[in-house]
Amino acid sequence: MIKAGIIGATGYAGGELVRILLGHKEVELKWYGSKSYIGQKYAEVYRNMFQLVENICSDDDIAKLAEEVDVIFTATPQGYLAGLLTEGILEKAKVIDLSADYRIQDVAVYEAWYKLTHKSPQFLKEAVYGLCEKNREAVKGARLVANPGCYPTCSYLTVAPLVQAGYLDLHTLIIDAKSGTSGAGRGAKVDNLYCEVNENIKAYGVAAHRHTPEIEEQLGYAAGEPVTLNFTPHLVPMNRGILITAYAVVKEGVTEAMLREAYEQAYGSEKFVRFLEPGVCPQTKWVEGSNYVDVNVVLDNRTGRVIMMGAMDNLVKGAAGQAVQNMNLMFGFPEDTGLNLVPMFP
Amino acid sequence: MIKAGIIGATGYAGGELVRILLGHKEVELKWYGSKSYIGQKYAEVYRNMFQLVENICSDDDIAKLAEEVDVIFTATPQGYLAGLLTEGILEKAKVIDLSADYRIQDVAVYEAWYKLTHKSPQFLKEAVYGLCEKNREAVKGARLVANPGCYPTCSYLTVAPLVQAGYLDLHTLIIDAKSGTSGAGRGAKVDNLYCEVNENIKAYGVAAHRHTPEIEEQLGYAAGEPVTLNFTPHLVPMNRGILITAYAVVKEGVTEAMLREAYEQAYGSEKFVRFLEPGVCPQTKWVEGSNYVDVNVVLDNRTGRVIMMGAMDNLVKGAAGQAVQNMNLMFGFPEDTGLNLVPMFP
Amino acid sequence: MIKAGIIGATGYAGGELVRILLGHKEVELKWYGSKSYIGQKYAEVYRNMFQLVENICSDDDIAKLAEEVDVIFTATPQGYLAGLLTEGILEKAKVIDLSADYRIQDVAVYEAWYKLTHKSPQFLKEAVYGLCEKNREAVKGARLVANPGCYPTCSYLTVAPLVQAGYLDLHTLIIDAKSGTSGAGRGAKVDNLYCEVNENIKAYGVAAHRHTPEIEEQLGYAAGEPVTLNFTPHLVPMNRGILITAYAVVKEGVTEAMLREAYEQAYGSEKFVRFLEPGVCPQTKWVEGSNYVDVNVVLDNRTGRVIMMGAMDNLVKGAAGQAVQNMNLMFGFPEDTGLNLVPMFP
Amino acid sequence: MIKAGIIGATGYAGGELVRILLGHKEVELKWYGSKSYIGQKYAEVYRNMFQLVENICSDDDIAKLAEEVDVIFTATPQGYLAGLLTEGILEKAKVIDLSADYRIQDVAVYEAWYKLTHKSPQFLKEAVYGLCEKNREAVKGARLVANPGCYPTCSYLTVAPLVQAGYLDLHTLIIDAKSGTSGAGRGAKVDNLYCEVNENIKAYGVAAHRHTPEIEEQLGYAAGEPVTLNFTPHLVPMNRGILITAYAVVKEGVTEAMLREAYEQAYGSEKFVRFLEPGVCPQTKWVEGSNYVDVNVVLDNRTGRVIMMGAMDNLVKGAAGQAVQNMNLMFGFPEDTGLNLVPMFP
Repeated sequence: MIKAGIIGATGYAGGELVRILLGHKEVELKWYGSKSYIGQKYAEVYRNMFQLVENICSDDDIAKLAEEVDVIFTATPQGYLAGLLTEGILEKAKVIDLSADYRIQDVAVYEAWYKLTHKSPQFLKEAVYGLCEKNREAVKGARLVANPGCYPTCSYLTVAPLVQAGYLDLHTLIIDAKSGTSGAGRGAKVDNLYCEVNENIKAYGVAAHRHTPEIEEQLGYAAGEPVTLNFTPHLVPMNRGILITAYAVVKEGVTEAMLREAYEQAYGSEKFVRFLEPGVCPQTKWVEGSNYVDVNVVLDNRTGRVIMMGAMDNLVKGAAGQAVQNMNLMFGFPEDTGLNLVPMFP
Repeated sequence: MIKAGIIGATGYAGGELVRILLGHKEVELKWYGSKSYIGQKYAEVYRNMFQLVENICSDDDIAKLAEEVDVIFTATPQGYLAGLLTEGILEKAKVIDLSADYRIQDVAVYEAWYKLTHKSPQFLKEAVYGLCEKNREAVKGARLVANPGCYPTCSYLTVAPLVQAGYLDLHTLIIDAKSGTSGAGRGAKVDNLYCEVNENIKAYGVAAHRHTPEIEEQLGYAAGEPVTLNFTPHLVPMNRGILITAYAVVKEGVTEAMLREAYEQAYGSEKFVRFLEPGVCPQTKWVEGSNYVDVNVVLDNRTGRVIMMGAMDNLVKGAAGQAVQNMNLMFGFPEDTGLNLVPMFP
Repeated sequence: MIKAGIIGATGYAGGELVRILLGHKEVELKWYGSKSYIGQKYAEVYRNMFQLVENICSDDDIAKLAEEVDVIFTATPQGYLAGLLTEGILEKAKVIDLSADYRIQDVAVYEAWYKLTHKSPQFLKEAVYGLCEKNREAVKGARLVANPGCYPTCSYLTVAPLVQAGYLDLHTLIIDAKSGTSGAGRGAKVDNLYCEVNENIKAYGVAAHRHTPEIEEQLGYAAGEPVTLNFTPHLVPMNRGILITAYAVVKEGVTEAMLREAYEQAYGSEKFVRFLEPGVCPQTKWVEGSNYVDVNVVLDNRTGRVIMMGAMDNLVKGAAGQAVQNMNLMFGFPEDTGLNLVPMFP
Repeated sequence: MIKAGIIGATGYAGGELVRILLGHKEVELKWYGSKSYIGQKYAEVYRNMFQLVENICSDDDIAKLAEEVDVIFTATPQGYLAGLLTEGILEKAKVIDLSADYRIQDVAVYEAWYKLTHKSPQFLKEAVYGLCEKNREAVKGARLVANPGCYPTCSYLTVAPLVQAGYLDLHTLIIDAKSGTSGAGRGAKVDNLYCEVNENIKAYGVAAHRHTPEIEEQLGYAAGEPVTLNFTPHLVPMNRGILITAYAVVKEGVTEAMLREAYEQAYGSEKFVRFLEPGVCPQTKWVEGSNYVDVNVVLDNRTGRVIMMGAMDNLVKGAAGQAVQNMNLMFGFPEDTGLNLVPMFP
């Protein structure tokens, strides 16, 4: 049994970490950090936790926290962890960062897209990008894991098998993404009010969303060459779920059978990525509350393009679930411990 | 490890039974009965179960099923089980019926409200009304459990402590209920189409809903005298959740402290009923996906009336979760086995 | 053609006033007052108004506004207008106040429920409570109209015919109300975020909602005696709509026919109140976007109680539509000018 | 004043036609055709129309209808009108067909995508494709108008200015579309139940949706050469609204200013297409209930691609509103008669 602490426990991703860790038999959750609610009962901030969590929200003292726990999850704004992380902390506790601070290896790219100065680039090399299905072995030995963004996780898992197989004309790659509103966080903003989101859909961050370079970097590794693509997220009137619809021209001679074979190869032995049967389009509701990503692919012979689709719960595989999956790898637990969450439908 | 079968596995309550039983370490689910989908893969009917359930939907042959399993869940239309149940079946397998067939002791009342002839009233006496918090001991020894209706479960648990305490003028009792749409089932009806339910609220079954006599009978036991009340359900644009708002005049001399004490007494040692802190109104989202019922009470000194509130997930504590809770009792498992479902928020 | 100005034009009720007045052939809208958006284009705050409204948001200078327009709508927080209103203003412009400042005749009651000191009680006597169907003649001559609250409008119109007819035991009256989220306004609060409201229902303001004394006062006039009742509002995951479900014991000898006759009498010649056919329950979607209130009634012979139901769009008949209806009466326009809005379904 | 009849008046598009025509001062609606509800009061099928429409649903006798009215709207399944239309009918009444029967000039293409034999191809040449902003002059003289599909209307208006300007590499054009659920019609299907659509998003008809050839044909006219593209629709949990996100590589030398100029040129004098200010992404809620289409464009210099966005109410500009706009053109009424519908927000 290990001890864990969360900094940023009162955001939606933090809340989901609590939900999952309460069902994890190897973890005792000791620290509910929350700048905004210090001293308040956690179960008053998330009343679903009434009688399940008796703890009080603590200050965000990461140095002290590192003394008390084996693993720290940071579900904090960009730049927060980078400003505080020290070698001393990493010597005492493993850190799984749900922010973007250590996801992008090129500091200049990070600083350009995030409009921040990176305060601790010295840890970038050590940080492992925690996309478990991709970097499983590296995660096992890591002290610092950069937990991937929600869009990058779903985008990568949806597209990577064909990139790796070398089947796509990479210059033609476009990712059109749709997300539920929990991805926007629990901050009180007019744009996220019920009446503004309900019965509405819009694109946002067009050609400017900060998950773009993260997706490009990871797909670049898969391709063995730099990838530049269009990524357009949309806000959908639902709480949870990300759907990716990606398009690319396939190289001459690539057949539907080859496409399917590439996915089978990639995911045949993966528990949390489900390659659907031919003709079945992924639906976010089919994975809600679970750590699964459902993917499928259609080849359009008329246009020579492949349509790749992926669905995921943004708070689980897109945040807290993957963080726990990383923790399992880092501590040698079976990878699915605490993650046998059956999708809830309807 | 026991073996279980479901008749009516492809309705929403049936699907929720599957979700919960997949996480129950003492149960192996052997039979997915579904008249409408015989021969089809269950995971094609509920694609959230892809790679989790490999079974094919079977015919509804309850006699054969009784040979193969230890417990049968029937999530079937009213009158179905009553038309098929035999002593032979009950000798071989325990039965938990999610329909209304054995909930109401008075056959005439059942037949009047359900417009059906009861085909096997001989089992009514034996059947135990499976409201676990109320009839725990009787359930333990039962062969046949009548799993309560969703509205009756939430209504009873919300109101009963004050009825039992004798604090209410029973002639003034009114229950105004609000339910998500999964309660209406998965049948293809225009009234339940997305566009008809979304952005809409209505009452239905006014002064005529079939859960009324069930609520009255159970509250009558709590009161020690017959109860006649108004029950008005409403359809709310959400998938899951029931909220009960109940009103009654309190007897002279009853104070807020006495009211709270009655709930503390009733639920202080109950795991699945959470009596909230003063001033906190239950919300359905706080119990979504879980077996909890959240209740609270407000005394309005201006009117002398108490407002009793209860929130529950209609598919869990209101159907499949309570059915599993009953099964646990019947087979001697810890009552919460497989039911440690943390509510999902948001 | 008259000139109109709005103070508080960027709240949801203000926005709805703009929507309706743009289609009103007798009104030119000259002033879009908004403390929060002074100097900004109105169509940037409500982009549905792009190319329809070219105006800039103005300061809330009511004295100056009174010089420029014939009628002022105040869709402002409680206490705002009471703090500014003068005889001079009323001499220059008619005022229709969508806040609660002049709705309640008894200052002590207002101050107790609103926790405010009333700054200009001298106008209370003059103010006409603008429930058009009730006070039509008085509104015609008014300089100052207190536009009713959303819940009081729907509650009154649903219940009043039976109160006036003397058919109800008034001590038994209970109003259970359900509202869409636009009633909570456009302020940025966590409680009104999409993810907090969606897939959720709750009661709020139990035994304490400020519309209670307003409803009691108006029903008291209808009854000819004081009325004390329970009023419980609920927040429903939809943008628009209020549904009222009201309960009361009917007096001995009152029949369903008598109940229906009372509604026919009350609303037979009313355009905006539609008394539905027997057995049809009002639905908020059937009146969405329109000035209609749909009402119906069921007598439950088992309990001796009547269930009264009413549905309305809270932003139209519950706010902006009724304000325009009042304006039409005050200026001698046909009462339905600009209000022939056909409900939008689905 | 002209007389109008609708065949298929009880579908969602038919219902929207009724809503709009009730506010059209030049039209008297005489005939509510509905195979499924013959003899029933229309206001019982759409209760929003209570006291607004007294008519009974009639049989679908188009020959008889042609005798009685000046214009017939057919909101019927594909193949229906093609099987019934005669020269005699067109001599008596103008016909506006909301189905796909006369939208596609190439019979073979129609038959391949719709899996139907076209029963009256002889009218194809005469039929005018009623995209008003494109074919305004031709519509004025038409007897038979093929009212465009919802996706094609929004896709065309979003993309055409750049196609016409010759700025796009047409081989790279991709249209990713998102639609509310009313587009799926009022038929009772499990897939369209509230619980299946709510909190869910999916692609459907991938590489196979029947609006594809219609979009390609119309954009082909704009381009002066054949266009082949990818079109992927998605089902979004909302009642109304279509959002188009389209992608294409721009030709060398094309600048953001040139792009904006192309839209200004195309829509500067169009009432119903609003070209938004730079940086503003269209939202479906901003046009809900109205005949507007909001469009905007972003050039991504990193990828050399343009992102074109368009939002529309699928039942208004995507169906009934455009049908009325066509009618106005055909009968010489001002084009916006009855269509000055201010978008409803929220």
